[in-house]
Amino acid sequence: MRVAEDWSLESVRSEGSDGRFNRRAIKVEEAQRRVLAAARTIASELVPLAEAGGRRLAQQLLATSDWPPFARAGLDGYAVRAADTAQASPAFPAALRVVDTIAAGGLALAAVEPGTAARIMTGAAVPSGADAVVMLEQTAEGMAGGERAALVKAAARPGQNVAPQGEEFRLGSPIMEPGELLRPGHLALLGTFGYAVVPVYRRPRVAVFATGSELLPVEAPLAPGRIRDSNSAMVAAMIRQRGGEPILCGTLPDEPEAVSEALIHIGGDVDLIVTTGGVSVGDYDAMALLLRELADFDSQFEVFPDSLDMLLFNRVSMRPGSPTSAAWIGGKLVLALSGNPGACFVGFELFAAPALRAMQGDPRPDHRKVQAVLARELKKGSPHDRYVRTSLLYGDDGRVYADPLAFGKSSMTASIAQAEALVVIPSGSLGAEAGSIVEAWILPQ
Amino acid sequence: MRVAEDWSLESVRSEGSDGRFNRRAIKVEEAQRRVLAAARTIASELVPLAEAGGRRLAQQLLATSDWPPFARAGLDGYAVRAADTAQASPAFPAALRVVDTIAAGGLALAAVEPGTAARIMTGAAVPSGADAVVMLEQTAEGMAGGERAALVKAAARPGQNVAPQGEEFRLGSPIMEPGELLRPGHLALLGTFGYAVVPVYRRPRVAVFATGSELLPVEAPLAPGRIRDSNSAMVAAMIRQRGGEPILCGTLPDEPEAVSEALIHIGGDVDLIVTTGGVSVGDYDAMALLLRELADFDSQFEVFPDSLDMLLFNRVSMRPGSPTSAAWIGGKLVLALSGNPGACFVGFELFAAPALRAMQGDPRPDHRKVQAVLARELKKGSPHDRYVRTSLLYGDDGRVYADPLAFGKSSMTASIAQAEALVVIPSGSLGAEAGSIVEAWILPQ
Repeated sequence: MRVAEDWSLESVRSEGSDGRFNRRAIKVEEAQRRVLAAARTIASELVPLAEAGGRRLAQQLLATSDWPPFARAGLDGYAVRAADTAQASPAFPAALRVVDTIAAGGLALAAVEPGTAARIMTGAAVPSGADAVVMLEQTAEGMAGGERAALVKAAARPGQNVAPQGEEFRLGSPIMEPGELLRPGHLALLGTFGYAVVPVYRRPRVAVFATGSELLPVEAPLAPGRIRDSNSAMVAAMIRQRGGEPILCGTLPDEPEAVSEALIHIGGDVDLIVTTGGVSVGDYDAMALLLRELADFDSQFEVFPDSLDMLLFNRVSMRPGSPTSAAWIGGKLVLALSGNPGACFVGFELFAAPALRAMQGDPRPDHRKVQAVLARELKKGSPHDRYVRTSLLYGDDGRVYADPLAFGKSSMTASIAQAEALVVIPSGSLGAEAGSIVEAWILPQ
Repeated sequence: MRVAEDWSLESVRSEGSDGRFNRRAIKVEEAQRRVLAAARTIASELVPLAEAGGRRLAQQLLATSDWPPFARAGLDGYAVRAADTAQASPAFPAALRVVDTIAAGGLALAAVEPGTAARIMTGAAVPSGADAVVMLEQTAEGMAGGERAALVKAAARPGQNVAPQGEEFRLGSPIMEPGELLRPGHLALLGTFGYAVVPVYRRPRVAVFATGSELLPVEAPLAPGRIRDSNSAMVAAMIRQRGGEPILCGTLPDEPEAVSEALIHIGGDVDLIVTTGGVSVGDYDAMALLLRELADFDSQFEVFPDSLDMLLFNRVSMRPGSPTSAAWIGGKLVLALSGNPGACFVGFELFAAPALRAMQGDPRPDHRKVQAVLARELKKGSPHDRYVRTSLLYGDDGRVYADPLAFGKSSMTASIAQAEALVVIPSGSLGAEAGSIVEAWILPQ
């Protein structure tokens, strides 16, 4: 069942004979801490280098050679001994006998002895004896003693236009750390050092259930009073954005037994279960009923035992998504997100995204958190942390502005697609003024 | 062959009997225009909704119903006729006979007639006759005339807590445009409207060749004077970031015949060819030799004929990557990027990324261009546009700062991985001061 995000749970009823209103809210940070405590790092696998983009590295990797592996010519010209050119000028060029021509990938046939030079192409290994490369424009072709010579018209500085061996990396030095997200530049570096296969964390396999008797499959025609399950596909895309592999398990009715059966019978190769809907306090909220039966979170466990089921939380002091819940069931982390699309989206970003990152070896906060100028006033009624979907605008003044989208309407599906950041309006305030600086969490594109 | 980015082509030699130095530089914008002229929009295909994330929509899609499809209750409470509650107060509640209980997904059994109310759950269809929902906290249970009644303690405003049918979308109104990148929120919207399969542009298939006789495959042990092909894997990851499918074709020697053979014999199902290396003016630069034989770009063609090969450009007034070239060969766009990893990266972002975007229906500029504060001084020696890899920092003052990485060292592979933006230092300047506002193109994560 879906709950409007502005609807304040505790204001409804403080009694509640069946306990459904006695859910203790915890802070977002504490809820995240509990989720991360239950998010086990998963196994690694080897993937071909060209398919490693977007994955997270499973172990520290080292430079397998110096880089550059040899002194490399930075441009086309002549490899020389700088000392031979010390007196050179356009009027009195140094004449150096040309002993070799070295293509990139080629090998020098001769060392550069005093009084000689080698024609060299960009990227080629600077031959033994030479300590500088003179660019072609500072030379002319000539003859000296009846042999082909390079006429060098300017003094070369030792080391000039030569990238020394090991300038960027030394053999054995660390090049990348475990948990690091592999971007295109990382692959270039891995290729440089010969990592044709790369150890990365396996993609976390995430089972997705949508609960709610009102839900129709997406392909079904609408029926009176029914709506289609729009959350499963959204959650699948969010799982993929975080490197996971979604396993869509369809919809479940508002029946605790059916939901419980589904969660318990999910295969052992699932790393995380995400459900949407049924977490609120309505008469038929199956997830909420199910979770109420569990033992409470016990902070004594560093690793939760498979044999023990546990409620991590079933209420978070935040809007939207205050009934967002999490549990440890059958040795698996279960994140029970709100059925409301906006609240589901925020719940995923706050809890599922960091869990997936931690499972892939990087337990640091998942979002880039930036300071942005609030483009328009935000008022809020509740005392809780408020997460507002915003677009981001970049001003001519170098400032980044966060502009709220459809504030206060978590059911508004249209604005989720436009969201570029979540702005946090912390608890204890009644909002933020236009022009004030707020914290914005940048969302993945 | 790789060329150092600070090495100024034209300063080497202005003669050059074989024409290799007579390459006419064009501006980046003109080069991009030519590439986009040759980037044909490709075919579309249908994919399952849950796999459509990150793809681009191939046609405009319309709302298949009003949304919400019926007037929906925004919270749990009672559906009432507002007029019945006009005089209600805590001391004198309006007693309304409860005629129904409506779950989300359920159907009303009775209309709400004057003097009656229906218990209703969040998301359920507001029954006929009712025009407002009163939240549970503003009610009490009671009896009226021997029947169960809701005691409403506050006057309801017509429309209160009801999302009217069609509030977000009207049947038939456009919900998404062709070319749009499908993010998680888009999938929620598509699911809402029953798009179980989604028309998206096919993934562009991109053949990738690395040229250079110095190149070893990544899995090979290093050999004297040789380096491994680090560009192919990097380019593969960049192609995937832009929705394309890379086809890695390995390395080619510095032999124009071999390169020409490879390009001509590539299968017809390739949409774009990207090569790296061999575009400079060295003695053995195969791509450059090959491209010199082509007819020059002819702006009279709106669509280039398959039968005509054409050079689009073989020099761009930019650093790094000035020898970056493009051609139309065998009815295919060929982008010949520099072999230098840094210049290859910039060339891809400037030309391949917009081409891939245009092939998938969106010919708009590929990068988010923002104004950023330059964190440290950038000096440049050449009069050309300079593209500098930077990290991005977000200050407490709401400003975004661009901090140059390894400026002036296009061969530095390590810094590509860290790059978050390309800062453009336009031609005609000698650099930019620390603290000045510069244009930064945000790179994909």
